[in-house]
Amino acid sequence: MEFYEYLPFWPKLTREQQQYLAQNVTLHHVSKGEVVHNGSEDCVGPLIVVHGQLRGYSFSEEGREVTLYRLFERDVCILSAYCMLNSLQFDISVQAEKDCILYRIPAPVYKKLMQESAPVANYTTELIASRFSDVMWLLDQILYKHLDSRLAAFLVGEAQLNDTTELRLTHEEIAHHLGSAREVVTRMLKYFQTEKMVLIARGCITLLDMDKLREVAKDSLR
Amino acid sequence: MEFYEYLPFWPKLTREQQQYLAQNVTLHHVSKGEVVHNGSEDCVGPLIVVHGQLRGYSFSEEGREVTLYRLFERDVCILSAYCMLNSLQFDISVQAEKDCILYRIPAPVYKKLMQESAPVANYTTELIASRFSDVMWLLDQILYKHLDSRLAAFLVGEAQLNDTTELRLTHEEIAHHLGSAREVVTRMLKYFQTEKMVLIARGCITLLDMDKLREVAKDSLR
Repeated sequence: MEFYEYLPFWPKLTREQQQYLAQNVTLHHVSKGEVVHNGSEDCVGPLIVVHGQLRGYSFSEEGREVTLYRLFERDVCILSAYCMLNSLQFDISVQAEKDCILYRIPAPVYKKLMQESAPVANYTTELIASRFSDVMWLLDQILYKHLDSRLAAFLVGEAQLNDTTELRLTHEEIAHHLGSAREVVTRMLKYFQTEKMVLIARGCITLLDMDKLREVAKDSLR
Repeated sequence: MEFYEYLPFWPKLTREQQQYLAQNVTLHHVSKGEVVHNGSEDCVGPLIVVHGQLRGYSFSEEGREVTLYRLFERDVCILSAYCMLNSLQFDISVQAEKDCILYRIPAPVYKKLMQESAPVANYTTELIASRFSDVMWLLDQILYKHLDSRLAAFLVGEAQLNDTTELRLTHEEIAHHLGSAREVVTRMLKYFQTEKMVLIARGCITLLDMDKLREVAKDSLR
């Protein structure tokens, strides 16, 4: 796929804008674990995920981290273009969770297009709104549901009860146990999977990291 | 002040766009306590705060609330234009914290301008980024800071905002603002009282030692 096929605003650019963008886009290979954007220290510009997986996370001075969102193939990472927006007043970092192939649009190039073109600007708004929604979902979980902790506690409890780390449970069954909805449980299980705490297969959930699950479950086990 | 003086993109609109906007803006008087935007149920469009104070908050099914941000005179409330952005996938509400005078731009009118005009689109991006930053600050507080420091910061902030050290707030209201439980807030306030930082009376908290409160709040004050 050519880089422009990832960008829905491409057909709405003028010929000159298309040329300008094409001349400045670069392709990068990034190894798993590499930090591609580090807080307010740099401003690499938007990154298009051609292959692999990125993780956006916040961090405290004491070294604690929280995953805020994940980006997969065809996603565009906009918060690595931190400097383009005066009102983005927070530091996050972005790390390659798998080996990645990324297109990079330099920040000044993207900013120029954004200022000239309403479609580019509106696309940017949608990207920001999308990441904002990810963070709101996380905040909601933390504030109100404690579903992460309740689900982890449930999984740990089941493992102990059945003396196995391979749980034969459907998401529906778990949702019933927790008084939640199946989709909500599925989403949280996927989050646990990306955090390498569990492995989801059809009709079976394998607990991979009991220590981490117990840590998450802590609030509910008291 | 005329409504267009609040909108930095005004001079960059065409004459037709200016007329279109001017014909559709309306002025509203809203009483303290009134909810001006309620989750995904309505889409009133952007609101300009001419006078007064708005509070954006999220809420749980169980009735718990958390204040996400506040808007003051000259601020523009964009999340009340929820429906304009496909990628905004979360519900918040907006309430008048004081009697307010607001200009309202109907959502379809604003959306049309946003699609036509890069300056309007970029202004919108900045507004969203600004609210996103508020929420990231809050998330940071919740994830990494302790409640003592958050409570102290809240009390100091309220004192400055209202220009008084006698705060007419219930523990319940404070708990809502901090996304905590009333009992937890009461316990912490009692601790502050034994430390001679505050004096608790029915419906009123008097701040006795601002220096000490600021010291405790240090971690939470930007």
